[in-house]
Amino acid sequence: MQTLELDLGNRSYPIHIGRGLLSQPELILPHIHGASCVTVSNETVAPLYLSQLEQNIAALKHSAVVLPDGEAFKNLETINLIYTHLLEQHVDRKTTLLALGGGVVGDMCGFAAASYQRGVNFIQIPTTLLSMVDSSVGGKTGVNHALGKNMIGAFYQPQCVLIDTDVLSTLDDRELSAGLAEVIKYGLIRDVEFLHWLDDQMDNLLARDPDVMAEAIFRSCQHKAEVVAADEFEADQRALLNLGHTFGHAIESAMGYGNWLHGEAVAAGMVMAAEHSLLMGWLDTDEVEFIRRLLIKARLPVAPPESMSSDDFMRYMSVDKKVLDGTLRLILMKGLGESVITADFDPAALQRVLARDL
Amino acid sequence: MQTLELDLGNRSYPIHIGRGLLSQPELILPHIHGASCVTVSNETVAPLYLSQLEQNIAALKHSAVVLPDGEAFKNLETINLIYTHLLEQHVDRKTTLLALGGGVVGDMCGFAAASYQRGVNFIQIPTTLLSMVDSSVGGKTGVNHALGKNMIGAFYQPQCVLIDTDVLSTLDDRELSAGLAEVIKYGLIRDVEFLHWLDDQMDNLLARDPDVMAEAIFRSCQHKAEVVAADEFEADQRALLNLGHTFGHAIESAMGYGNWLHGEAVAAGMVMAAEHSLLMGWLDTDEVEFIRRLLIKARLPVAPPESMSSDDFMRYMSVDKKVLDGTLRLILMKGLGESVITADFDPAALQRVLARDL
Repeated sequence: MQTLELDLGNRSYPIHIGRGLLSQPELILPHIHGASCVTVSNETVAPLYLSQLEQNIAALKHSAVVLPDGEAFKNLETINLIYTHLLEQHVDRKTTLLALGGGVVGDMCGFAAASYQRGVNFIQIPTTLLSMVDSSVGGKTGVNHALGKNMIGAFYQPQCVLIDTDVLSTLDDRELSAGLAEVIKYGLIRDVEFLHWLDDQMDNLLARDPDVMAEAIFRSCQHKAEVVAADEFEADQRALLNLGHTFGHAIESAMGYGNWLHGEAVAAGMVMAAEHSLLMGWLDTDEVEFIRRLLIKARLPVAPPESMSSDDFMRYMSVDKKVLDGTLRLILMKGLGESVITADFDPAALQRVLARDL
Repeated sequence: MQTLELDLGNRSYPIHIGRGLLSQPELILPHIHGASCVTVSNETVAPLYLSQLEQNIAALKHSAVVLPDGEAFKNLETINLIYTHLLEQHVDRKTTLLALGGGVVGDMCGFAAASYQRGVNFIQIPTTLLSMVDSSVGGKTGVNHALGKNMIGAFYQPQCVLIDTDVLSTLDDRELSAGLAEVIKYGLIRDVEFLHWLDDQMDNLLARDPDVMAEAIFRSCQHKAEVVAADEFEADQRALLNLGHTFGHAIESAMGYGNWLHGEAVAAGMVMAAEHSLLMGWLDTDEVEFIRRLLIKARLPVAPPESMSSDDFMRYMSVDKKVLDGTLRLILMKGLGESVITADFDPAALQRVLARDL
């Protein structure tokens, strides 16, 4: 097992990564301070791992709420199912919620924890690669609104993140690739050496080699923890983690939540950011080709859906959280492993990327 | 004008109290950092004061969302009306929300501010006596759930509280009395001298004498600010501010939100706390009679609805936020001006109070 610490003063917490962690109560119990806990999971994950998790908490009062699976259910109505369960179980402020699932479960459980009785503790137990390397770390919680992704939520940190890499054995191939998009993202933002390592190891990653996978997760979490520790509330540099996300969120919203996986939309979005960077003269053709080939190797899409017009993009991008006082800010690249947040881009170049006029 | 400072480190803010403050842009504008703001109000208050408020922000991009009036609408569905308005207006993270209304508007606008794009600034502009002396100060925000009052929310502080006492001229008598319940509460919790002053000044308060009213509001906000500064997240002493509220919330929930005003339910709840304290030997008969007479003078109820059984009370009280690990804690009195939080009470005495077997 490897352990990272996310350093946030009195809100610091450990991230444990390793095999078989779901069966190690000594990792979970120290973070449960009251006499009860409630697991939040979904219909896909609960049949696989809920009973294994509940063996750790058998001595406590515990119950579980099992949500429908998928991004389409990441909304206020589903959050209300969690609140209703908590109130029906007479769960008090000293309870701890356990988020057992992917990013959707973690984001919703985290926001429920942030808002139930104005805040209870929670633990992230991610079961998809994407949630292990990204959404379970850093305290972004929330739900979608019909008019925009992740528009409702809170910054609210867990007590601990428990990453049991054994659970990846049951993840389907499409979800695995979607997670790799966020892994590749860290390389593109801030670590060119990691990017080349990923290029070398891609076959092993797709074959789910446990050691290679653990190394990719550890290095991803390390990047995430460093960025979040420096800028918890996204005043500035944390926004770099949204490389590809402004385009990606627009794709997810326009196509209907859940039809494109988040990681798939981010992959296409990162290619669009690369194309825009190329038009700005900040990347060269070889670099853009390298990015495209690496994503294809990870079995990810490298272009937006053909049905989307540039007007579709602009409509969804105008509510992006990186818009400040009416100015759209984008994450672009100035070389492999170096991304920047900028409002100072050529709008004609953006227009060409959105209209696929390349 | 008088100004108090609520001291919460980098979340500190001023509370301005005085006449005509709604027409003083220099009090509002310094707290608006972006280029836009959105007022949240309701159907009763907006026709009276929205245009006056909007004169302060005429130079900014601004809009308003007008909610239905009343506690019955303090829920997630109504919050969603705010989110939808913000997204339709393409409002970004640098916007400021203005809560113009009573406690329901302030609590909902505050929670919308806490959760829209994971947090935007907001300003409290309370228009009822109750919200001026209690809910606008201290950062408790949220909504009700069908199974319990204020069960969903966040601790989220405003940038400023602006109390224009002139707006009390349009408050109806029943709302005025409901506000006086929370004013009297501060006396009962921690200031016996204030309690006697209120007893002396009750006729002037009911006549809305501006100077007497301003003094009552100032002293109430001073108490609230001191308690919140010492215990922002209600680890301990802040719970004293809930004197009468455990019983009161049960009354509000059982009777249907809005049928009893919050202050009315708190008044009856404070009498029940006094009766319980009498049975514990902590108050004497004269003290309980003084409390009852003072509340009657303020035109408030001093007993719970006859239709409520002790079972009704227990059902709603079991989800109270002061329940910890299954133990109900109550706020009781050990003399006038001295309240305590205790789990160490005689359950038989509680049962007698709930069953009205006194």
